Amino acid sequence: MGPHIVSAFDDDLIAVQARISEMGGLAEDMLSSALEAVKNRDPQLANEVIMRDKRLDALEMQVEELATRVIALRQPMAGDLRLMISALKMASTLERIGDLAKNIARRAVYLASVRPVKVSTSIVRMGTQTLGQLTEVLDAYTSRDTDLAVSIWQRDIEVDEMYNAIFREVVTYMMEDPRTIGLGSQLLFIAKNLERIGDHTTHLAEMVYYIVEGEPLGDDRPKGEPIGLEGL
Amino acid sequence: MGPHIVSAFDDDLIAVQARISEMGGLAEDMLSSALEAVKNRDPQLANEVIMRDKRLDALEMQVEELATRVIALRQPMAGDLRLMISALKMASTLERIGDLAKNIARRAVYLASVRPVKVSTSIVRMGTQTLGQLTEVLDAYTSRDTDLAVSIWQRDIEVDEMYNAIFREVVTYMMEDPRTIGLGSQLLFIAKNLERIGDHTTHLAEMVYYIVEGEPLGDDRPKGEPIGLEGL
Repeated sequence: MGPHIVSAFDDDLIAVQARISEMGGLAEDMLSSALEAVKNRDPQLANEVIMRDKRLDALEMQVEELATRVIALRQPMAGDLRLMISALKMASTLERIGDLAKNIARRAVYLASVRPVKVSTSIVRMGTQTLGQLTEVLDAYTSRDTDLAVSIWQRDIEVDEMYNAIFREVVTYMMEDPRTIGLGSQLLFIAKNLERIGDHTTHLAEMVYYIVEGEPLGDDRPKGEPIGLEGL
Repeated sequence: MGPHIVSAFDDDLIAVQARISEMGGLAEDMLSSALEAVKNRDPQLANEVIMRDKRLDALEMQVEELATRVIALRQPMAGDLRLMISALKMASTLERIGDLAKNIARRAVYLASVRPVKVSTSIVRMGTQTLGQLTEVLDAYTSRDTDLAVSIWQRDIEVDEMYNAIFREVVTYMMEDPRTIGLGSQLLFIAKNLERIGDHTTHLAEMVYYIVEGEPLGDDRPKGEPIGLEGL
């Protein structure tokens, strides 16, 4: 085949990766704005996050179509095939992160309508940590940096431990004042959403490693020890 | 290419689909046992569910390896490629359903250690509904029954409405007796896990439709109206 075909193939590979990076940037932005909406009690910003999720869904479908077409028409081998299969998984994971950010934004609309609570500070702190790891994993993808990917993968335990602390804090808070039970349940779900975003970020780190190294990252990731119920 | 190659190709396609069916059966079984463990307050059964999740993870990796190899070496076209790409997505979704069943089992261990609560009945009823839909979607996959897939896809609203009712019931329960807040939080998370299994089942129905029809199922699935917080 002539250089024209090879070049079109390269263009396709680049296009898929560009969509993944765009999805990553959008997911990052949604999470960041959702946390800001919780912190500043800003329902308008929260509603903007909810709107932006449609774009992420559309991008996921584009990645699926494009990657499937590349696989079918260009029949890539080894590294390039791995890149396309991983793109499908990354797109699905990023879409899920966006969904969780949207869910946090919905709860932020509610939080803005009730009186401020101290425990929100811990949640915003956990969110900042989670967001930082998401930013790093996207950098690791762009720069094919497996050392960074491994380091993110090992740090998921920090988010897990923050979740455990918040669970205890919120349950104590609800017990002290039963009128806050509805509110407390929302805070528990936000913390759980952040913990799941942390898990997804870890999966993204595994995918980056797999793309570069061609083999899966080990199975011995440090996990927060369940110290009772909150670890569930 | 000779008949030998074609036959080996068919064997590979059949092997991937057999693994998907095996994963489906295992996920179904895990959910069923987890619900039984909640209902009968049986921590031993719950622990068996937790153990079985490893097998599901191993099967997902096998599907990934096998489907990727088929795509790379056999370069399937149109319907067969769609089948292999969908297999990757279905394996990932089934693995996630198993994770959620495992999570319910973990909470069942806790529930068995505290005094029985009436609200567990509603949760088991919601679980039975969810399990029924999972069984049906696996049947739809085996028999390539798109009518059944569409009918499951349209019925996700029933599980959503059960979740909303349970949310209200549990929050009322916690307010009436604040000593039950820790317990109530666990019940809320179980109901949320079931609601997510329902969502994943709907996604499986979409994949079955796509495999058979070659185009995505429409975008107008009926969703439960959020009636306040519980709809989040």
